Amino acid sequence: MSASQAPSPLNPLVSIVMGSDSDLPKIEGCLEVLREFGVPCEVNVISAHRTPEDAHDFAKGVEARGIRVIIAAAGGAAHLAGVVASLTVLPVIGVPIASSALQGVDSLYSTVQMPPGVPVATVGIDASRNAAILAVEILGVADPHLRTALKAYRERLAAGIREKSRQLKDKLNSA
Amino acid sequence: MSASQAPSPLNPLVSIVMGSDSDLPKIEGCLEVLREFGVPCEVNVISAHRTPEDAHDFAKGVEARGIRVIIAAAGGAAHLAGVVASLTVLPVIGVPIASSALQGVDSLYSTVQMPPGVPVATVGIDASRNAAILAVEILGVADPHLRTALKAYRERLAAGIREKSRQLKDKLNSA
Amino acid sequence: MSASQAPSPLNPLVSIVMGSDSDLPKIEGCLEVLREFGVPCEVNVISAHRTPEDAHDFAKGVEARGIRVIIAAAGGAAHLAGVVASLTVLPVIGVPIASSALQGVDSLYSTVQMPPGVPVATVGIDASRNAAILAVEILGVADPHLRTALKAYRERLAAGIREKSRQLKDKLNSA
Amino acid sequence: MSASQAPSPLNPLVSIVMGSDSDLPKIEGCLEVLREFGVPCEVNVISAHRTPEDAHDFAKGVEARGIRVIIAAAGGAAHLAGVVASLTVLPVIGVPIASSALQGVDSLYSTVQMPPGVPVATVGIDASRNAAILAVEILGVADPHLRTALKAYRERLAAGIREKSRQLKDKLNSA
Amino acid sequence: MSASQAPSPLNPLVSIVMGSDSDLPKIEGCLEVLREFGVPCEVNVISAHRTPEDAHDFAKGVEARGIRVIIAAAGGAAHLAGVVASLTVLPVIGVPIASSALQGVDSLYSTVQMPPGVPVATVGIDASRNAAILAVEILGVADPHLRTALKAYRERLAAGIREKSRQLKDKLNSA
Amino acid sequence: MSASQAPSPLNPLVSIVMGSDSDLPKIEGCLEVLREFGVPCEVNVISAHRTPEDAHDFAKGVEARGIRVIIAAAGGAAHLAGVVASLTVLPVIGVPIASSALQGVDSLYSTVQMPPGVPVATVGIDASRNAAILAVEILGVADPHLRTALKAYRERLAAGIREKSRQLKDKLNSA
Amino acid sequence: MSASQAPSPLNPLVSIVMGSDSDLPKIEGCLEVLREFGVPCEVNVISAHRTPEDAHDFAKGVEARGIRVIIAAAGGAAHLAGVVASLTVLPVIGVPIASSALQGVDSLYSTVQMPPGVPVATVGIDASRNAAILAVEILGVADPHLRTALKAYRERLAAGIREKSRQLKDKLNSA
Amino acid sequence: MSASQAPSPLNPLVSIVMGSDSDLPKIEGCLEVLREFGVPCEVNVISAHRTPEDAHDFAKGVEARGIRVIIAAAGGAAHLAGVVASLTVLPVIGVPIASSALQGVDSLYSTVQMPPGVPVATVGIDASRNAAILAVEILGVADPHLRTALKAYRERLAAGIREKSRQLKDKLNSA
Repeated sequence: MSASQAPSPLNPLVSIVMGSDSDLPKIEGCLEVLREFGVPCEVNVISAHRTPEDAHDFAKGVEARGIRVIIAAAGGAAHLAGVVASLTVLPVIGVPIASSALQGVDSLYSTVQMPPGVPVATVGIDASRNAAILAVEILGVADPHLRTALKAYRERLAAGIREKSRQLKDKLNSA
Repeated sequence: MSASQAPSPLNPLVSIVMGSDSDLPKIEGCLEVLREFGVPCEVNVISAHRTPEDAHDFAKGVEARGIRVIIAAAGGAAHLAGVVASLTVLPVIGVPIASSALQGVDSLYSTVQMPPGVPVATVGIDASRNAAILAVEILGVADPHLRTALKAYRERLAAGIREKSRQLKDKLNSA
Repeated sequence: MSASQAPSPLNPLVSIVMGSDSDLPKIEGCLEVLREFGVPCEVNVISAHRTPEDAHDFAKGVEARGIRVIIAAAGGAAHLAGVVASLTVLPVIGVPIASSALQGVDSLYSTVQMPPGVPVATVGIDASRNAAILAVEILGVADPHLRTALKAYRERLAAGIREKSRQLKDKLNSA
Repeated sequence: MSASQAPSPLNPLVSIVMGSDSDLPKIEGCLEVLREFGVPCEVNVISAHRTPEDAHDFAKGVEARGIRVIIAAAGGAAHLAGVVASLTVLPVIGVPIASSALQGVDSLYSTVQMPPGVPVATVGIDASRNAAILAVEILGVADPHLRTALKAYRERLAAGIREKSRQLKDKLNSA
Repeated sequence: MSASQAPSPLNPLVSIVMGSDSDLPKIEGCLEVLREFGVPCEVNVISAHRTPEDAHDFAKGVEARGIRVIIAAAGGAAHLAGVVASLTVLPVIGVPIASSALQGVDSLYSTVQMPPGVPVATVGIDASRNAAILAVEILGVADPHLRTALKAYRERLAAGIREKSRQLKDKLNSA
Repeated sequence: MSASQAPSPLNPLVSIVMGSDSDLPKIEGCLEVLREFGVPCEVNVISAHRTPEDAHDFAKGVEARGIRVIIAAAGGAAHLAGVVASLTVLPVIGVPIASSALQGVDSLYSTVQMPPGVPVATVGIDASRNAAILAVEILGVADPHLRTALKAYRERLAAGIREKSRQLKDKLNSA
Repeated sequence: MSASQAPSPLNPLVSIVMGSDSDLPKIEGCLEVLREFGVPCEVNVISAHRTPEDAHDFAKGVEARGIRVIIAAAGGAAHLAGVVASLTVLPVIGVPIASSALQGVDSLYSTVQMPPGVPVATVGIDASRNAAILAVEILGVADPHLRTALKAYRERLAAGIREKSRQLKDKLNSA
Repeated sequence: MSASQAPSPLNPLVSIVMGSDSDLPKIEGCLEVLREFGVPCEVNVISAHRTPEDAHDFAKGVEARGIRVIIAAAGGAAHLAGVVASLTVLPVIGVPIASSALQGVDSLYSTVQMPPGVPVATVGIDASRNAAILAVEILGVADPHLRTALKAYRERLAAGIREKSRQLKDKLNSA
């Protein structure tokens, strides 16, 4: 059964965790992309530091619930992705959030510089949309329908850019 | 058929590309891990900038050859992972290599800060071992045998650390 | 035939590519300068990552169309200048755009730290006006009229600063 | 009963945890200082990511065992101090270790930029000696003997610097 | 007598010093936390550089007045915590304030990178709330009532996050 | 007359200036490339700060001597490229040299962040080889022979990488 | 004749140069301080890069006109202080201005990292007020009246901080 | 009486303080330059943090002893220059020493980013030679002999660079 065939809220394949509910606006692109690809997902607010037991229980139970990819978004000393990754062998995608005076450099380093043995698949600062696409690519490894959908998505991206290029040329020519 | 059952050099599932053959020593941990998990892989030296046509042909043809995950390692203005990612919908893992005076910060930023639509799953600077583990985790999404193997690997890691902790205590007590 | 004699929209000598149409406001100074020097140019939106085939076709065909200098502006993991440079032997001027939380440091490193063999002539962050002047200087290597025009431009710059210095002194003296 | 009166290996007041046994040389100054002040301590190798369950059990049990201050040293995405701090209300002193290409900036940010509610008392990069002194200062809050010992230690530091200043003057005068 | 039993304005246990009265808004979280835990405190504006004699007299006299922990907040070349720490053996908690163009990196480095012998317990940039919690943890080393209060505080933090997670799920489900 | 036809030491087209003779080893790649392309060049040691009058005279006279492109290499507060660029309308290529504790970040920023009106074509840190190639590309704008030579050079680069890729595969297969 | 005795606009002792008239708001604190100390000064807008000849003539003539200290403020690749310093043996105070995406780090490095032989006395980013005080301190080396005035200024600074500390205590006590 | 007339060890005009005797090798260039100019100086090891009372007494007494300029060199959280500057109105030159994992960025920020009212004249990282020249320039404000000596020194610097340029040309021509 492929991911693209059975998107159901009861049966999420991707689990999104964020370190603070204030990060929600930065996660919306992520939700949009997963909906667009019909990949069922769930969202939780779990703080690696303020609800460490919940983070532990979440990470230990997530595989058994049928989740296949985890997206973890956090700012500052962003340990959430790493803490979850230390307790599961599912791929964990880390989204460093720019929430402090250091503008996300702290989150990026805290997320990407993991020790040997426990990787986090890190995307750009605040790049939750790309986290979702990466999750779809990972599910697509075993699901040719998703790969086909991803190719169509890429085509739409390219078409959008070509259209903007045309509009820009028109605008400059008529100026 | 699962990855863990049929590792064959004729049938690689993971393709490793590096931007320069001088990066080979930094890739050896990657090869070790894939061998340890019995995941067949191939290695290529392809420069995004000096062999751009090869990079293009590689990325366009890689899915059809049965590859499922790509690991791209490069230093400096490390475009290799991004260039490959722009031409395939397979997950691309980027390994920033510390090869310049900037000690890998340039490679990290060039690899991780991808635009919306084309993610690279970035691991730590020079962390090719983690790139391999992430590749196994991604293949493990559809392969319970690999997930089991990953859990055993984690157990071995933990046992190694516990053993070192014991040795350290003995050494300090006898001092 | 010199560049300064035949500026025609049909016959552009400088091609400006930008990675996203949202960068247009940052490119306007560039267009102004080229117009001021009568250097014909064209503008395209091409994303190294979202329209890689277009980037490839653009770079491979640009010399044959009579273009002599390329200006490429992009933000984040700014690969556009490097990707174009890898496919042409025309000089490519890179403009790092400050579009991410990292405020252009990522774009600067991604643009300037090119591997041996494929340089990008990098100007300052968001410095598209300087990219245009550099393009005129490069065309001026073989065009004494442009060099004369550049000297006059420099004189106007200097005169402007001297006038501002005078105004400031008047203002401070009358205060 | 004060810390300075009953230093016994059976009864440690300070627990040192390090993320890797390769960090031991960087921890030796810490052990020296604690011995000098007669503060009993213990040492463990615990990886936040490779032995997460051990980190959890350590942190949950540490207060009941009579430990009063924890020193956690780790490099890279240095989560150890934060993970321990999330599971105990004892003060946790974090020592960022310079172990990666980023030379400790990653460890510093990962250790110090904790979210509201769960502080880590961070000292300088590789500054394990200062971590020990801080631990003694914290124990000294309730132990006037330790405060007296700290004042004597400061006097010895000052005397050492004054002696070096004298030697330097002699050397320069005789030169 | 424990801190939690006798909070009295006449008898402060924690002394907060800030380098400039413009830092007051960044210190308010600190005051709130100390009030919440019933830990009596005092506040002073003392500049390491503009009132160095006051900084000296403050630091030399603070232990005798019954203060047990010092919190020092400063921006730029933030020497305040270090200057105070050099003149007392009480634990000094440093709060780097983001007040300059460098956005707190200067304050962080100036606060945390202390020489051997004189530590500052540094918290995150602008993290005065965490400074207060750390002060309570330090007082809690000798005061089981404060440790109990800290555990209750952590429980409230966790409950708050769980409640926000629930609200978020409701919101997303009803969307 | 094209550059590729008349390489003569009496008639240099490219002038290399470096801020210190200690930078010579970092300039050797530059000399090699120019020799390989038969582009005549000259070399001078001129310090923007220690021989400012020489820098002035050099920059004012360089165009009249037939030079068409300038390469300026300097470290630290690397003003040399900018100072020369302020006094000529020839294109100036800046090579930031990593000579200080800051490892070239200072030179990079000092070279690339020029004010509006006076660009420096900056290449990577210590990338003098790329500076030479960029100089050839700039001369190639008006010289089709040089463009042909550049294409052949790129082919050799690509062939070299392909050969290394083959050797690597052989080595790994035989291992 | 001491500086404090004969402040006359005809007879400036301090010359302020700034790289752009847009920096004027950042220079106002500088003018205020010099007025407060009765030190006569002049102001010029001179760009190291856009009016290099003016910078040269200014620097060569400034000592003969009776100027004793120079304050140079500039942003980006801030060469102004260094260029002036290379042409005079008067002390040159550099004020790095935060005018680019890099927020003054570029200006700081460009100003402070001067080569051996040609120092610039650098103050903090945008710290023109401190530049003025440093100029007064330098003039005070040979002028005891100015040293007395500086001590009075310091007293006023300290009194201001003490008053703010008192106000803050009152406010907090009455809250 | 001018500085250049009466250099006597009994009568130092410049006082050099360094935070640690391990910084001595980095101070030797400073001593050489002062000797070369015949400016009498003294050297002290004083730690802002480990001998704060000595720093205080030094700074308060230094003017009365006839010292006219202070050079303070320190690494890490380099407070020494700032602490001394807060207690004297003599000009204080700060030399940030690269002694930590952060390679002098910490010392630079700690030295240069002083608050309004108390400047430190900062030179480059490890640039003690330039600190000495700046000290001579400051003394030269009131001493035409020193200004003459400085001009001769600059001439020697320039002659040295010109000689090296000639040698380099000879070497390249004969190659």
